[in-house]
Amino acid sequence: MTKGNINVSVDNIFPLIKKFLYSDHEIFLRELVSNATDATLKLKHLISIGEANMEYGNPQIEIKINKEERTLHIIDQGIGMTAGEVEKYINQVAFSGAEEFLEKYKDSAKDSGIIGHFGLGFYSAFMVAEKVEILTKSYKDEPAVRWICDGSPEFTLEETDKTERGTEIILHIADGSEEFLEEFRIRELLTKYNKFMPVPIKFGTKKETLPLPEDAAEDAKPETVEVDDIINNPTPAWTKTPSELSAEDYTKFYHELYPMQFEEPLFNIHLNVDYPFKMTGILYFPKLSNSLNIEKDKIQLYQNQVFVTDEVKGIVPDFLMLLRGVIDSPDIPLNVSRSYLQADGAVKKISSYITKKVADKMVSLINENRDDYEKKWNDIKIVIEYGMISEDKFYEKSDKFALYPNTDGHFYLWNELEEKLKPMQTDTNGNFVILYATNADEQHSYIESAKEKGYEVLLLDSPIVPHLIQKLETSKEKISFARVDADHINNLIKKEDTSISKLNETEKESLKKSIEETVNDKTFTVQVEDLDSSEAPFLITQPEFMRRMKDMQATGGGGMFGMNGFPEMYNLVVNSNSELASELLKTENEEQKASKIKHALDLAKLSQNLLKGKDLSDFIKRSYQQLSV
Amino acid sequence: MTKGNINVSVDNIFPLIKKFLYSDHEIFLRELVSNATDATLKLKHLISIGEANMEYGNPQIEIKINKEERTLHIIDQGIGMTAGEVEKYINQVAFSGAEEFLEKYKDSAKDSGIIGHFGLGFYSAFMVAEKVEILTKSYKDEPAVRWICDGSPEFTLEETDKTERGTEIILHIADGSEEFLEEFRIRELLTKYNKFMPVPIKFGTKKETLPLPEDAAEDAKPETVEVDDIINNPTPAWTKTPSELSAEDYTKFYHELYPMQFEEPLFNIHLNVDYPFKMTGILYFPKLSNSLNIEKDKIQLYQNQVFVTDEVKGIVPDFLMLLRGVIDSPDIPLNVSRSYLQADGAVKKISSYITKKVADKMVSLINENRDDYEKKWNDIKIVIEYGMISEDKFYEKSDKFALYPNTDGHFYLWNELEEKLKPMQTDTNGNFVILYATNADEQHSYIESAKEKGYEVLLLDSPIVPHLIQKLETSKEKISFARVDADHINNLIKKEDTSISKLNETEKESLKKSIEETVNDKTFTVQVEDLDSSEAPFLITQPEFMRRMKDMQATGGGGMFGMNGFPEMYNLVVNSNSELASELLKTENEEQKASKIKHALDLAKLSQNLLKGKDLSDFIKRSYQQLSV
Repeated sequence: MTKGNINVSVDNIFPLIKKFLYSDHEIFLRELVSNATDATLKLKHLISIGEANMEYGNPQIEIKINKEERTLHIIDQGIGMTAGEVEKYINQVAFSGAEEFLEKYKDSAKDSGIIGHFGLGFYSAFMVAEKVEILTKSYKDEPAVRWICDGSPEFTLEETDKTERGTEIILHIADGSEEFLEEFRIRELLTKYNKFMPVPIKFGTKKETLPLPEDAAEDAKPETVEVDDIINNPTPAWTKTPSELSAEDYTKFYHELYPMQFEEPLFNIHLNVDYPFKMTGILYFPKLSNSLNIEKDKIQLYQNQVFVTDEVKGIVPDFLMLLRGVIDSPDIPLNVSRSYLQADGAVKKISSYITKKVADKMVSLINENRDDYEKKWNDIKIVIEYGMISEDKFYEKSDKFALYPNTDGHFYLWNELEEKLKPMQTDTNGNFVILYATNADEQHSYIESAKEKGYEVLLLDSPIVPHLIQKLETSKEKISFARVDADHINNLIKKEDTSISKLNETEKESLKKSIEETVNDKTFTVQVEDLDSSEAPFLITQPEFMRRMKDMQATGGGGMFGMNGFPEMYNLVVNSNSELASELLKTENEEQKASKIKHALDLAKLSQNLLKGKDLSDFIKRSYQQLSV
Repeated sequence: MTKGNINVSVDNIFPLIKKFLYSDHEIFLRELVSNATDATLKLKHLISIGEANMEYGNPQIEIKINKEERTLHIIDQGIGMTAGEVEKYINQVAFSGAEEFLEKYKDSAKDSGIIGHFGLGFYSAFMVAEKVEILTKSYKDEPAVRWICDGSPEFTLEETDKTERGTEIILHIADGSEEFLEEFRIRELLTKYNKFMPVPIKFGTKKETLPLPEDAAEDAKPETVEVDDIINNPTPAWTKTPSELSAEDYTKFYHELYPMQFEEPLFNIHLNVDYPFKMTGILYFPKLSNSLNIEKDKIQLYQNQVFVTDEVKGIVPDFLMLLRGVIDSPDIPLNVSRSYLQADGAVKKISSYITKKVADKMVSLINENRDDYEKKWNDIKIVIEYGMISEDKFYEKSDKFALYPNTDGHFYLWNELEEKLKPMQTDTNGNFVILYATNADEQHSYIESAKEKGYEVLLLDSPIVPHLIQKLETSKEKISFARVDADHINNLIKKEDTSISKLNETEKESLKKSIEETVNDKTFTVQVEDLDSSEAPFLITQPEFMRRMKDMQATGGGGMFGMNGFPEMYNLVVNSNSELASELLKTENEEQKASKIKHALDLAKLSQNLLKGKDLSDFIKRSYQQLSV
């Protein structure tokens, strides 16, 4: 029996590990299972290169709880350690065995999937254990050893009689950490961190019903057997190549990742890159209809199949944060701050690679099945549009996959839009004016007016549309967007003026004046126009620029500073050729005239959703009275 | 000259420090300035207990950049180190000098404000420097020493001729870290992390204009002098007691914390607790009108006047995250994960202490100046209401400070509400029915009907109100809330039935049938009621329970699973005593009858904001035609 002191600096390093590195106590299990996986894969590698002469077999990692003894066991059938290796790897804290191993077997180990990033991991056991035992037998022909340490710098090391190859870690759980003796808690942790690790992890047993043999009697009862309960899927979909996977496999894996998600994903993007960094993964576009779950099921980040985090801000471009799925990369720095992540070169490359892949996928999706892509557009547009605004590289490619639907449900790509609409909708200055609505219901009457002129109106209803429009206007030549209620349609797309008026200038002036006096509200600028006699007598419009600036500011960023406090301003367009206009000029009873103007104004307000509160109540009361007489 | 090797484990610890502990490179300056502060305060302490025999004076910490030499200097006038101490504190990495010091002078040092939490801090210098020099002279009568290390385990240590007491750290900035040679960058860091540290920090000089002497000539020009530019305020408001501070001081400090906030805070809460944990701080209720800045100016967390973070989730109860201000506590674990924070006992106590203090402050505010409190209610209600829902302790006290405004702007406490409204608004079952509106404009006509009956209607317009109502209903006896448009007011508060009808049952049945046939929409359940003849002929209502469940689900959490997909259901209340009802019964022309019913339905829809799109356009067109004839 040897007795000795662990290197003296442990006195100071221990509290450090506890406090800073692994402040999340539960992490200890991830670390120990990672080490066990590591030890197993190392053995596989040594066998594969002929350094170890034995069968690899089907090694497992087993997790066991012994409640009476208050112990938790992590048992592997891996490479094991000799007394000398325990001395070297365990007693010299912060001496990463995996790194040394990788150094030694550099080239051959490269693709063997050795995790080896958690050099200090073993010591995290002391966060939950008052005493830790290691029983280990090396694959080399050397005696097994038993190491015990109670978290002080003193340890004991002695020979023991373990006969099976591999390592067993026994944690004597400390007071206050009893949760880690509960089956449900350990199961929870294994499921969270180790669900896709590459070596099977056994945690207890479960009953399984055997299928009946084909020649079974009709009243035969199916037999149940006790089988190992394997907690993980050692070969998750993202570790395979797309050619190995069917559409069903992708969907199945989605539900494996998010067991509480019942809706099917819209489509997936398989990521796979080797150079200049290693990364694999599968991203899914979910149906975004139910906004409540956005926070919960997020993209998960793995390192060599070990779950790291689902906080991927900085790694994945912002506009893809609404996606789901996994990313696995050994090249992403762990435990680092966001500002650091965003500045990191490797991370930037990963982020721009993902952006490129998503753009490419969109192009292939629309080319493969345009119909299907159009059906999904409403569920994906917010992601695409946000990407167009925030990532220039993505924007540059977006003409190939960004759709612009009109209010009748017809979808255009940009070039199709130009081809179809430009001839009709170019104004006298040669500008291609694109009319849009943000709400087909609310802007219904305006849309109808535009359609009567033979124009088409796009339906752009995402909250970020004002920003998108701004981007399109500044990057494309001679185009401008106008919401369909920004002015009378004749003014939105100016053509040669051929209008004639029933009224002369004096009559118009008089009409304008009496309307202004009755309305008596600076919010409305009265403007008399010579419109078709069949058009509405009054029309309320809101100039594009102001409204858009306000909208932009409301959705955050952009717009002009201080616009929020600015009052809403409207134009009241009066149709000089309407019957009502002539009526009003003829009416001599001032009270009657005013009452007609007010009622007409109320109606105009209704089409802009501006009639509210007492004004609306009064309007309704008045209308009920008219109806009953 | 001594040459030696730093303790061998540094080989492994160095990359660890770089990678994990201080992945945010800029942190190095915080660490070094903290050490300098530490050294200064240690000296002050030793003088105060008579262990050092000298004048404390007005020591400063100075930061200097030398661009030509590519060096950054941190110079203090503190305790300094002897050769032996450098050997001990610097060469033995992770050996926290401050902790040893605290151990030795335990009792007397307790309140001297020594920071001493950053044992490893010094080595963070190597994140940005290729070589680090220490020039130091102890307050003890020993020669000054010069230590140099290039980040490898090798260092040199020699005597030097520094004569002033204290320590100068010289960083030879590494390639790629040139940003730390820029004045604006260093100023930014000092402002971020050291703005309120307890020893004055000098960074260059600035020009200051002297006030003119009183007897100055009229054309005298004010003199400008060069003075030290002191970056920090060593005695920020939260380190003082409330009795030392005026209302103006609190406001001034608010603007010192948030220089970009131009609005005044509504009020502040001074936190000060010694046992069972140490915490000081000042929280401010900001005007929440402009929602855009919520993300930016958050509560800042300090440890002994060193800025730590503005991510206080877990430390401050969720409902107070909208507040601003500072919390300073040495007892909050640093750099730890959220789930850990939330489980930590000390943190839980801090959180519940803050909750209690906020509740107490509310009580005193409303008692001191009810008028003023009412004026501020709209700005603070979201915080208070969220607190009532989420923190039981806060809810229990809320009867003393939670206000319930009615639609006429009168504010009630709960007991006042009961006293005033209960007599009128108790129904035949003895339930106190509280009527509320969520939007005074949209529910205007319903509010008016209730008021005509002599009832009062509360205006509860926060998005979380459905949850609040649910909470109130389940915790108080024999009360229920009903939105004012949930049914006809006669049904919302049932009284003895004294209604009489102009129509007999057969007529009612026939009326109901013809309306049902014309409306022909399962969304609306027709219900004929004997109302006052002056009331509206048609009225659309939406039952409370369904609407509330949907609202709750829309604001996240609560409600009933799957309610979102459920269609909206309404009641169409028909007033049997209205003129229109009699009219309809008399009308024999079916087309005319149907057109009257449709128009009346449209009007009823208008008061519920349900008339949209084509229906609204048609309604308006029809109305314009009627107006013009």
